[in-house]
Amino acid sequence: MYIPSYFKIKDDDIMYEVIEQNGFATLISQHDNRPMATHLPLTLDRSNKCLYGHVARPNPQWKGLQQQEVLVIFQGPHSYISPSWYETGDSVPTWNYVAVHVYGQAELIDDEHEVMSSMISLIEKYEEPDSLYDLESVDSAYLSGLSKVVQRQELVIQRLEALNRENERNIAALMRKNLELRNTF
Amino acid sequence: MYIPSYFKIKDDDIMYEVIEQNGFATLISQHDNRPMATHLPLTLDRSNKCLYGHVARPNPQWKGLQQQEVLVIFQGPHSYISPSWYETGDSVPTWNYVAVHVYGQAELIDDEHEVMSSMISLIEKYEEPDSLYDLESVDSAYLSGLSKVVQRQELVIQRLEALNRENERNIAALMRKNLELRNTF
Repeated sequence: MYIPSYFKIKDDDIMYEVIEQNGFATLISQHDNRPMATHLPLTLDRSNKCLYGHVARPNPQWKGLQQQEVLVIFQGPHSYISPSWYETGDSVPTWNYVAVHVYGQAELIDDEHEVMSSMISLIEKYEEPDSLYDLESVDSAYLSGLSKVVQRQELVIQRLEALNRENERNIAALMRKNLELRNTF
Repeated sequence: MYIPSYFKIKDDDIMYEVIEQNGFATLISQHDNRPMATHLPLTLDRSNKCLYGHVARPNPQWKGLQQQEVLVIFQGPHSYISPSWYETGDSVPTWNYVAVHVYGQAELIDDEHEVMSSMISLIEKYEEPDSLYDLESVDSAYLSGLSKVVQRQELVIQRLEALNRENERNIAALMRKNLELRNTF
């Protein structure tokens, strides 16, 4: 990312905060001679300067990921800035945004315990504090059969709508549109 | 992007809507043997299936952009989906999101009128309908000297805060933190 020096965040802690508060990242690598990207939540291990996450096994991006330098983008809030806000007419619009671009080497993890512990940290981060959900009590045959199609969209839409927040309402509306289209064709 | 077939948006109009409603995009290409990304607003010309935008001249990404297939990402709303919302304990968390990945060829535009008209469409799209701002009345010497550092952050922060919306407040807070850090060191 090109950053005019005036706008560069030089403080590691601020970058870590942006990463932790905007953990739904974009993983980018070169694949079949063009860029490929996967959207996925990543957790940061500050002390080891590592990011942990997982992709679906049928997602081909993980093949070849270790043979190159990859980019991970964490994006924070952003906003159009109107030139009408300035004290002069001699100005142009701009867009203010916060983004952290992390370059690094990917390493595939085979060890089952390490994979499980990375999933548990994701859940600890994102489940509500009063959630009773426990990954370790989930049937292991189910866990290993996760390539099956997820068929619980309607329940999810209802819960998103019930949250009554703009972002969640938007995604619920798009999910509902998608379900309706499927029923039409 | 890997998309399980069940989740694929097959309707062009829905994709166009996602692009138009989430116009602050990420442009990705391979640069110096690693992926490089620029965040920028892009406008869609539906009839010609073209995206228009501009990057800062000192941003090196435009060099070499024409010699490869590039990726542009438009990201919509996204949300963590708790397995506690399902009717069974045998489930895992997931993340629902909306994203459109556009692959294509980049073409650099030299023609001044075409550049100006692309900037005017951006302004028409993002300025409030009652805005009095007019790009064509901006001093042309100013426009051509735009590589100067922008020094109006404080005014921008005040206007963002005045909007009193969560996203705008967040970016204003981060801008203020950044300004304060600069004053400290």
